[in-house]
Amino acid sequence: MKKKIIIHDVGLRDGFQSIHQIVDTNQKIEWFNDLVTAGIRYIQIGSFVNPKILPQMADTDKIFSIINTRSDLPKDLVLTALILNEKGMERAIEAKVGKILMGVSASETHSMKNTKMTTSEATQRIINIAKECIAIGLDVQVSVQSAFGCGYEGKIPKEKVLAIIEKYLESGLRNISLADTAGHANPKQVADLFQSILKMDENVELACHFHNTYGIGMLNIQSAIENGVRFVETSFGGLGGCPFTKVPAGNVATEDLVHYLWREGYDLEINLDKLIELSRKIEKTLGFELPGYVYKTGKINWI
Amino acid sequence: MKKKIIIHDVGLRDGFQSIHQIVDTNQKIEWFNDLVTAGIRYIQIGSFVNPKILPQMADTDKIFSIINTRSDLPKDLVLTALILNEKGMERAIEAKVGKILMGVSASETHSMKNTKMTTSEATQRIINIAKECIAIGLDVQVSVQSAFGCGYEGKIPKEKVLAIIEKYLESGLRNISLADTAGHANPKQVADLFQSILKMDENVELACHFHNTYGIGMLNIQSAIENGVRFVETSFGGLGGCPFTKVPAGNVATEDLVHYLWREGYDLEINLDKLIELSRKIEKTLGFELPGYVYKTGKINWI
Repeated sequence: MKKKIIIHDVGLRDGFQSIHQIVDTNQKIEWFNDLVTAGIRYIQIGSFVNPKILPQMADTDKIFSIINTRSDLPKDLVLTALILNEKGMERAIEAKVGKILMGVSASETHSMKNTKMTTSEATQRIINIAKECIAIGLDVQVSVQSAFGCGYEGKIPKEKVLAIIEKYLESGLRNISLADTAGHANPKQVADLFQSILKMDENVELACHFHNTYGIGMLNIQSAIENGVRFVETSFGGLGGCPFTKVPAGNVATEDLVHYLWREGYDLEINLDKLIELSRKIEKTLGFELPGYVYKTGKINWI
Repeated sequence: MKKKIIIHDVGLRDGFQSIHQIVDTNQKIEWFNDLVTAGIRYIQIGSFVNPKILPQMADTDKIFSIINTRSDLPKDLVLTALILNEKGMERAIEAKVGKILMGVSASETHSMKNTKMTTSEATQRIINIAKECIAIGLDVQVSVQSAFGCGYEGKIPKEKVLAIIEKYLESGLRNISLADTAGHANPKQVADLFQSILKMDENVELACHFHNTYGIGMLNIQSAIENGVRFVETSFGGLGGCPFTKVPAGNVATEDLVHYLWREGYDLEINLDKLIELSRKIEKTLGFELPGYVYKTGKINWI
């Protein structure tokens, strides 16, 4: 029996934000229900961004308002959502988000493009927002985007990432995720970065988000898990991934990770069959093949 | 600097045997040339099987006869081919194959379907053939197919695999490959099996062949490399894979593995750009998308 790994499915956000078609709110809620039934307990619902920029996420407030009235959901279910700024924070508070996610890019170019701020300015702003959320009793996870390399800048020095982490830790922010936005991470680098963070603060709660741009997303997750990470962000069918590639190589699929961890002896309390069924439904509805493997082949028939 | 990993590209055999279209001999030779130019030094040319059963491989003798007259090829280049029986051996000897590959399935059902023999009978026959090849000075690699699980039988007990290995070792056969025919392998199992073989004979030369049915082919390769395997079988673009699935999940792509190992600090003396170019050409000629990742995205622009 190994330590409990917590799978944070980001398909409703990262997956649906990556495709052009706008998925109907009721359809999203049906698939959310399927994730819950399968035993997923961390579910990313959407992001509070400008609906003109990301119309796919425009119903995030609405989904929360519908889900929050329900009494049939498990007590340990945590609904998350992404915010980018103060306006997003207000909407997230209003929507009663279970864990609010926000981040800073370690790449100056990426940061400028996304926020019109330097990394240093953006870090200060995110820390202020995070502290405001915490002050009113909300859970927060802060991330470093482009932590392993950048589609614009290439190499991101480790020191650049750790400088942001240091600011987070100084501000009492201990739920920290490293996001491999461009999919550049390699297992040794993953091990090195997470070990460095644990040396700065052994009580930090670590999360990871790897895009599968070069086919080694699963290797990077394995390395992260072996180096202290407990929260792993994946998406149903592997939908989503690096926003800077023409080729949608996707995320690691939630069901592929569950299949792998199941075979390695982890106890996840997740129903793999239900996850496979869900990705098959999503493929059928969206009308194109998803990047995942296991939902296509079916799980192996022995262990 | 890590130990030298030798990549054995099996695309011309495993890749082209998995598709219906029959690739023209001159086209195969052009892509073979590209592999050589990229620095690949172990190349699987084809298999000596009944051309009525596998017409895609019918030109294997012809390719050898053309290549063997050439004086422009690197001296350290090793051309390999698969044989299934005595008839294949005769053709392979005639063709002057650099390393002859043959194997036995650890699954009784799989063995019966392929050879009409039990695993034990097939092992004895393969050992006899291998010894005959060695007696006349030829290099041989013997494998265990379905070593990690079987599409028909499910679990394959470890003891079943090791019993075949024991017979190989008793017969002086020390170039040994484990093949994950159905793609069922998991990293812990891979570590366990290769470690067990090394305990039986620490001087064995180990090879691995993983199909990417469940999306963890690369993880299994990593585990194999960490547990003493030096020869890794992959295919250009990831073409090929498990013959028992409706969904062609493929092999690990040679260029994906090279990209990953390059980032991890291995010195492979392989030109990744040439490999990427090759897979792009193959995709264009075949007219469908290959399973690989890196040939689609291009390699990262920094290290």
